[in-house]
Amino acid sequence: MFGWTGRVLRVNLGEKTWKIEPIRSEDARLFIGARGLGTKYYIDEVDPTVDPLSPENKLIFATGPLTGTLTTSSGRYDVITKGPLTGTIAASNSGGFWGPELKYAGFDMVILEGKAKAPVYIYIYNDMIEIRDARHLWGKDVHSVTDSLLTETDSEAKVACIGPAGENLVKFACIMNEKDRAAGRSGVGAVMGSKNLKAIVVRGTKGIKVADRDAVFQSVAAARKKLKEHPVTSGGLPTFGTNVLVGIINSAGALPTRNFREAIFEGADKVSAETYNEKNLIKNKGCMGCPIGCGRVAKSNGIYVGQGEGPEYESTWSFGPDCGIDDIDAIVKANFICNELGMDTITLGSTIACAMELYEMGVLTENETGYDLHFGNVNAMVKLTEDTAYRRGFGDELAEGSWRLAEKWGHPELSMTVKKQEMPAYDPRALQGMGLEYATSNRGGCHVRGYLTSPEVLGAPEKIDPEDNETKPVWLKAFQDLTAALDSAGMCLFTTFALGAADIAPQLAAVTGVDYTEESFMQAGDRIWNLERLFNMKAGLSKSDDTLPPRLLKDPIPNGPMKGRVNRLDSMLPQYYSLRGWNEEGIPTEEKLIELGLASYL
Amino acid sequence: MFGWTGRVLRVNLGEKTWKIEPIRSEDARLFIGARGLGTKYYIDEVDPTVDPLSPENKLIFATGPLTGTLTTSSGRYDVITKGPLTGTIAASNSGGFWGPELKYAGFDMVILEGKAKAPVYIYIYNDMIEIRDARHLWGKDVHSVTDSLLTETDSEAKVACIGPAGENLVKFACIMNEKDRAAGRSGVGAVMGSKNLKAIVVRGTKGIKVADRDAVFQSVAAARKKLKEHPVTSGGLPTFGTNVLVGIINSAGALPTRNFREAIFEGADKVSAETYNEKNLIKNKGCMGCPIGCGRVAKSNGIYVGQGEGPEYESTWSFGPDCGIDDIDAIVKANFICNELGMDTITLGSTIACAMELYEMGVLTENETGYDLHFGNVNAMVKLTEDTAYRRGFGDELAEGSWRLAEKWGHPELSMTVKKQEMPAYDPRALQGMGLEYATSNRGGCHVRGYLTSPEVLGAPEKIDPEDNETKPVWLKAFQDLTAALDSAGMCLFTTFALGAADIAPQLAAVTGVDYTEESFMQAGDRIWNLERLFNMKAGLSKSDDTLPPRLLKDPIPNGPMKGRVNRLDSMLPQYYSLRGWNEEGIPTEEKLIELGLASYL
Repeated sequence: MFGWTGRVLRVNLGEKTWKIEPIRSEDARLFIGARGLGTKYYIDEVDPTVDPLSPENKLIFATGPLTGTLTTSSGRYDVITKGPLTGTIAASNSGGFWGPELKYAGFDMVILEGKAKAPVYIYIYNDMIEIRDARHLWGKDVHSVTDSLLTETDSEAKVACIGPAGENLVKFACIMNEKDRAAGRSGVGAVMGSKNLKAIVVRGTKGIKVADRDAVFQSVAAARKKLKEHPVTSGGLPTFGTNVLVGIINSAGALPTRNFREAIFEGADKVSAETYNEKNLIKNKGCMGCPIGCGRVAKSNGIYVGQGEGPEYESTWSFGPDCGIDDIDAIVKANFICNELGMDTITLGSTIACAMELYEMGVLTENETGYDLHFGNVNAMVKLTEDTAYRRGFGDELAEGSWRLAEKWGHPELSMTVKKQEMPAYDPRALQGMGLEYATSNRGGCHVRGYLTSPEVLGAPEKIDPEDNETKPVWLKAFQDLTAALDSAGMCLFTTFALGAADIAPQLAAVTGVDYTEESFMQAGDRIWNLERLFNMKAGLSKSDDTLPPRLLKDPIPNGPMKGRVNRLDSMLPQYYSLRGWNEEGIPTEEKLIELGLASYL
Repeated sequence: MFGWTGRVLRVNLGEKTWKIEPIRSEDARLFIGARGLGTKYYIDEVDPTVDPLSPENKLIFATGPLTGTLTTSSGRYDVITKGPLTGTIAASNSGGFWGPELKYAGFDMVILEGKAKAPVYIYIYNDMIEIRDARHLWGKDVHSVTDSLLTETDSEAKVACIGPAGENLVKFACIMNEKDRAAGRSGVGAVMGSKNLKAIVVRGTKGIKVADRDAVFQSVAAARKKLKEHPVTSGGLPTFGTNVLVGIINSAGALPTRNFREAIFEGADKVSAETYNEKNLIKNKGCMGCPIGCGRVAKSNGIYVGQGEGPEYESTWSFGPDCGIDDIDAIVKANFICNELGMDTITLGSTIACAMELYEMGVLTENETGYDLHFGNVNAMVKLTEDTAYRRGFGDELAEGSWRLAEKWGHPELSMTVKKQEMPAYDPRALQGMGLEYATSNRGGCHVRGYLTSPEVLGAPEKIDPEDNETKPVWLKAFQDLTAALDSAGMCLFTTFALGAADIAPQLAAVTGVDYTEESFMQAGDRIWNLERLFNMKAGLSKSDDTLPPRLLKDPIPNGPMKGRVNRLDSMLPQYYSLRGWNEEGIPTEEKLIELGLASYL
């Protein structure tokens, strides 16, 4: 095989055994890799009603055929499991160098089964696999355990690990690699913690064979040229990182503020990319083989002094505008804490925002929270970030996410979630397409499952009206399918500002030797999307879960340029179902599943 | 630095010490690397009158800034020293994977000094350097010592070593890497043997930084496209290897036969690429990152049964037509023996041919040689190949090369050498430009110092008349400079069928970040050429060494399409000197040396 290494490592943590299996090559062709192929393996092996934190659940680390190759921005891998936060399929995507290193060790995927009796870590050095005692590492934060593991193994190894949050089964714990890169959402880190697995350390020194080297060079050179010419991938992202969006989204009247009560933030300038670049940025830092290099090494100042990476725009938003906070150093610090302790910034910030609204309503008081939790309380936000990872005090409630918190206190409508996962930093009342995207995302509230902000606000690949409802189902299906295929190939979503399937499929074909075309690549995305949908159906979800919090459907935006709007999901969902080849209940039709080769899942 | 690792490893074998030095970056810019930069270091450190086989001589393994990068066909390194065969500067070039591996270990060059008290080998694993006992490996052939070393060190390491020929100080012993790749000419393997150094084993796991990744992709994609479109690099070489030339050169009436007595060979069809492909070829085998892949894995059959790699055209010629032999299996077998015992095929075959002529003249008899040495005696040729490496019987005389052999027996005119090194497989009487090339080559008779066969016969980059004398000095200077710069960059000469300085300089600039242009790249070649010339002058060579054997200047070709021709060197040399900016004695002028920044060598 080309692109794929052709090998899967299967580890049984309970029995401390492992074996190497050949990859199922026909599945690889159809589901590509990473998110798609990992999900295919997962669904074929795990009961959809499994308790995510039980030993019966499995956890799959999966790379794509492009991961670690010279193709554009292909440093990605996915972690696939059932999410403890959502109860849906979870596929959390991360960049950096860990995924490439796994390929260089000769593996496309690592499948983890069972639960270790005591904490362990896995050390992979090419074909040498060891399951090692990790009791001395349990409790350590992400940065210190990474340093320890590099000393214990090989200084050039790559470490993916959990922090205290994963150990403590925080429902939105991440898996972190190279210290500050996160497979962030849905609680994949809690699943790793439930298996008593602290880390997977990988060192690989093998190559990846590609099918047609000349075609690789031609297609990659052409793609890099487009990335270099596009203002987002050559200008905005390298210069400002994703934080460039603070000003843009606020100006569009789509910046959720104080738990989505408002849609513009009076302190946006104080937390903008320009402010961050001036006060916090140290330097850029890219993932493997990426010509964009959007990552940021930064510091926080004053009483919130610290150093690390990030935050991304959505993290700036969650700890900032969504909590009514305009202190950039506190926001940067909270993000650092999340990296060090291993938590999803979007869910945590939004959960704190939800608690703040409950507090302002008087439902929660300082008796329960231990802090004055009015919107804008910087200190409480930073303290609770740390408390949550250790489930200290009120942090123990926050560790369950906003849906369980709001439901417990009698106001589930105040949880700004879809399928129990917190929506990021784009108000669906201002951006109709993003509303449909959140409502239909297979892993719940999420912006990277069909990022319609790109056409609705940024004008890539072209500008469309954010208020229009009619064209959004068509746009969304295309974006969802493209993203599913792209994630599965191992390439970064950020390439799609400049590249489309017509640029990516040739790279995939050149690397794998499989004749992926623009059409078959997009169809693979459709197939993966439907497979994820089928899992969720079998896990107990239904049409009623394809919705938004009532606030976004009923309460008009009170201020800013989009004042008065609500999201008109009802006018888009039927058309979306129809385009997808689903019936009125949102269930894939037999005809559709036969077309996609998924009939066996009927 | 980009492209260059910026580090040099210096090993003193006598003292068993080593140190790592930063590279001299200004010299790197001016002399590029590999052949050029290695020669610069060598000349600055070693007395030109040094005895090549004394401990005072040094031996430099040097890579170029492109070596090991993604640029086209950049798997090359050079071994620089004073050649024991020639007494000139020697820079023997080899491909494969050893050079790239040295870069990945973090070194541009290894400088070897002194002489070990007993046999040793050097093991480099990134920054770990060990000088290890090799007494148990002394006497082993190249294949078995390579296998032993991979077992003793790391199965993924790359081994450059000498065979028995190098140990026995055969004047044309090679240094072999990955068993069958040779730094072949001028006796660099004897220098290694004189230092009691059996091998350098390298394992590297670092990367090479490049200055402008986008420009690398663009320039490499463009160059690969040209290589794929050119009939020689996409058709002839991959399909037939260099053996494709047997038929072509024979048809041109330029195939030296029976020690250059004739210029067409009646048995050419029996040793042609077509015959070899049918009887001997197993598969192609390319060097690191090469889209051409001209290397051949082969077998020999019948009583000469064996398996290995090669031969190249010039080896087919030396053991075949030049010895009046048309047995392809015997030729392939002799080549395998040379690889296993570590000897230069061109010099050995030509030396046997010289002995055969002396035998046919009655100067040598079976008393001296131990074999019937009439032209065409297949068995004697194969046996003497092995005897030479071990200096057994008459092999001890052959081990000194044809010049010393012919001179000893009173007929130095029968040694087909320039500067005591045997000329390869192109008759200078048929190809005027190749005659000038041989006569002026800084390392003596050699076809890869300005391969005018390319325009004179193959029509690349355009067809020129092989009989013309007027344009050859201009062509040759350009080819010599281009080749010097190309070798120094670490790229393979074979790219130049399709690529020129305008294609290579952009790759070098993209990798290094130094603004090499077509002009400055060619000037670097001119600089390197003059530096080599200056060394030879200081070593005692003069204009009188810029000549050809009298046979080629006086005795007309007796048969074939070029019947009646001699080489008219005298009509080309003055113009060549003038173009080079040299005086009538062939000495670089002060003005020229100042122009090139070489005034300190006046």
